[in-house]
Amino acid sequence: MNTKPTNVAARFAARGSVRVFSDKPLENNVLDNILAAASHAPTTGNMQLYSVVVSRRPEALGQLRKLHQGQPCVTGCQALLTFCADLRRFSRWCELRKADCGFDNAGGMMTAVVDATIFAQQFVAVAEECGLGTVYLGTVMYDLQGFRRQLELPEGVMPLFSIAVGYPAAQPQPSDRLPLEAVVHRESYADPSDADIEAFYAARESAPEAARFIAENNKETLAQVFAEVRYPRSVNMAVTEGLKDFLHF
Amino acid sequence: MNTKPTNVAARFAARGSVRVFSDKPLENNVLDNILAAASHAPTTGNMQLYSVVVSRRPEALGQLRKLHQGQPCVTGCQALLTFCADLRRFSRWCELRKADCGFDNAGGMMTAVVDATIFAQQFVAVAEECGLGTVYLGTVMYDLQGFRRQLELPEGVMPLFSIAVGYPAAQPQPSDRLPLEAVVHRESYADPSDADIEAFYAARESAPEAARFIAENNKETLAQVFAEVRYPRSVNMAVTEGLKDFLHF
Repeated sequence: MNTKPTNVAARFAARGSVRVFSDKPLENNVLDNILAAASHAPTTGNMQLYSVVVSRRPEALGQLRKLHQGQPCVTGCQALLTFCADLRRFSRWCELRKADCGFDNAGGMMTAVVDATIFAQQFVAVAEECGLGTVYLGTVMYDLQGFRRQLELPEGVMPLFSIAVGYPAAQPQPSDRLPLEAVVHRESYADPSDADIEAFYAARESAPEAARFIAENNKETLAQVFAEVRYPRSVNMAVTEGLKDFLHF
Repeated sequence: MNTKPTNVAARFAARGSVRVFSDKPLENNVLDNILAAASHAPTTGNMQLYSVVVSRRPEALGQLRKLHQGQPCVTGCQALLTFCADLRRFSRWCELRKADCGFDNAGGMMTAVVDATIFAQQFVAVAEECGLGTVYLGTVMYDLQGFRRQLELPEGVMPLFSIAVGYPAAQPQPSDRLPLEAVVHRESYADPSDADIEAFYAARESAPEAARFIAENNKETLAQVFAEVRYPRSVNMAVTEGLKDFLHF
């Protein structure tokens, strides 16, 4: 293993999400080894406030594809993993041991959301190092109750996102990212000027596909495609409503 | 690099958090290379709804240590990184480009929380592969407004947690974790029986330090130490109150 920082960084910088998978089988024991390794990711106070539901049966994947708005990778992957914030296991242990578990509120659920996401991303890191491809599907948030019913999640368990996994059909293309200075602040938050903001997004706005996205969606700017077509206010408001059932505000 | 799945998994399973760091300097360019690599982590719709504030100045670390309830690693590390859900950069771009950004609600903030946590954990994965040690500090949640002021975070930016980083003073010990069947469910959520729950926590309850924790805290069970001493209801309720300022419920 080459652990020279520049080489390690180059390896991680070259990653990309995979949406099309080969037929190569992913054995259960390989998947379990990766999940077990990922469970050594950091977790709040070693409480592991998360669960993952592994879906592999074709009928189940067919149902989940509908819930995921028809995305083809749901039935084209080797396994679909739905990561959940889970306050239930810990609180049931507390109940059995006469302890007052105080996580039944938004603070508790937010802790579990962070725990579950750390575990999920460590799963992705380990899986990708093993030559697997992955893609996050955020569409879970659009129908929390539908996923809850489909996966038979009990009270205290909130689905967050799915990750499709399998061997890549082709080498993934790394995505463009904002320049580092857009996301990293030194000592305190340096609120960017309008010119800074324009510079951060300049490469993305001048990329050939930007013009295509704008034309296809009949919009005037790339930001409108992101904010009004892909992630519109109506969807975010529906997500917000759905979250109320789980965050107990 | 050895990418045989069992070897990769063993490497990740052996990790542990590091709270004591050596004096070996962490150069700015090494840290920036790792952050840049981590920014290729998955992100919702390539929006990168996150920021990180890097604190290195001793005076700043002294202030942050107070906010982090005195934890010694804050001043003992080479750099303290505070990861934030950030809706501001994207929404300002939208404003400049006449796009209606609909993320100013709990749905938008939850998307940003997941984005920021994925980025943070990818930072940890890359840093650890480079031989660095890291530890998450969840204490940010206990005083969101204090961190907001200290780091000069504007509206739309929510601090989530800090990560202390540096070269480890000693090889970290891997933490025990629950058995895999406690966190992994096949096809649907298998709600455990009471006996299952007891089996999941049995090793932890019978470990030598469990008896010590119980005695030190004058409690009857290990679950009481976790739920009533370390993460009591009063703290979670205070976190819940603090979240309201950022989740806009």
